[in-house]
Amino acid sequence: MRVLGIDPGVATIGFGVVDFQRGAHRLVRYGVITTPAGLPLSRRLLQISEDMGELLRQFKPDEAAVEELFFTKNITTGISVAHGRGVILLELERAGVPVYEYTPMQVKQAAAGYGGADKRQVMLMTQRLLKMREIPRPDDAADALALALCHGRSATSLLNTERVFDPKRYDTR
Amino acid sequence: MRVLGIDPGVATIGFGVVDFQRGAHRLVRYGVITTPAGLPLSRRLLQISEDMGELLRQFKPDEAAVEELFFTKNITTGISVAHGRGVILLELERAGVPVYEYTPMQVKQAAAGYGGADKRQVMLMTQRLLKMREIPRPDDAADALALALCHGRSATSLLNTERVFDPKRYDTR
Repeated sequence: MRVLGIDPGVATIGFGVVDFQRGAHRLVRYGVITTPAGLPLSRRLLQISEDMGELLRQFKPDEAAVEELFFTKNITTGISVAHGRGVILLELERAGVPVYEYTPMQVKQAAAGYGGADKRQVMLMTQRLLKMREIPRPDDAADALALALCHGRSATSLLNTERVFDPKRYDTR
Repeated sequence: MRVLGIDPGVATIGFGVVDFQRGAHRLVRYGVITTPAGLPLSRRLLQISEDMGELLRQFKPDEAAVEELFFTKNITTGISVAHGRGVILLELERAGVPVYEYTPMQVKQAAAGYGGADKRQVMLMTQRLLKMREIPRPDDAADALALALCHGRSATSLLNTERVFDPKRYDTR
């Protein structure tokens, strides 16, 4: 099973593609989609739509893990990110890729064993699990890989051991 | 010039199409796009994308007026609306329709002469300007018509008298 992890946004969208098979996983690709700050929002959204379409055609993921939005601090940023997230969910739906949502706390729980883990612990675990020489950069790409691992490992272990990770599934296909 | 007013959302999206020419205006069509609450968000966004595409093909607006988002009360609702708004802006951009944003206060100012006007005053003015027998229903469609009037009248008066309405333009084509 190929999982696409997505850290949503408008300026920077992190993505990470990981293959899972029989309890093993393999890093396929990671990176970011970026849009220039100078462009009107609608133009940036069009670029995200096109880049997401290209990403999905190229890597053909079986499932996607997308970070849930929490906004206790900056509502304005949250509104902007949600515009981008809407377009990302649209493109996943258009491509027929089932979408699963995870909170940052669920990702930390999956990576480090407890939801209060710090960002660096999650990154180090991501690096270790994917046998990477360095911590993946930039942060948005690292977050996306952690999301892919969180989903793929829980989905795989679900198949293997019937342990339920409680992913909040958006799509039931 | 044909203006499409849009009151964004996920469950209900109001739209209103108004033609403006030489200071006169004519109601073309208004209504709502709705998506069922039971569907996953990504499916609802796909439906919005398709319905917006159909609306744009059918009415071919020259410009669009979309309500800006303000969230002082319910952040969760705001995040949801912003997902839908992202898809709406994307479809407008895809169709090459320039997007203008207006705050609810700007719409009230344009309709009733002051930003503190109540909703009913705006609706009555919308009804009167468009020579409608009744106040347009539902509310989302009435809001969309008020947005179209706000933009079209200011754009028209801008052409006629060079009065600047200060629309915050998203797109400079």
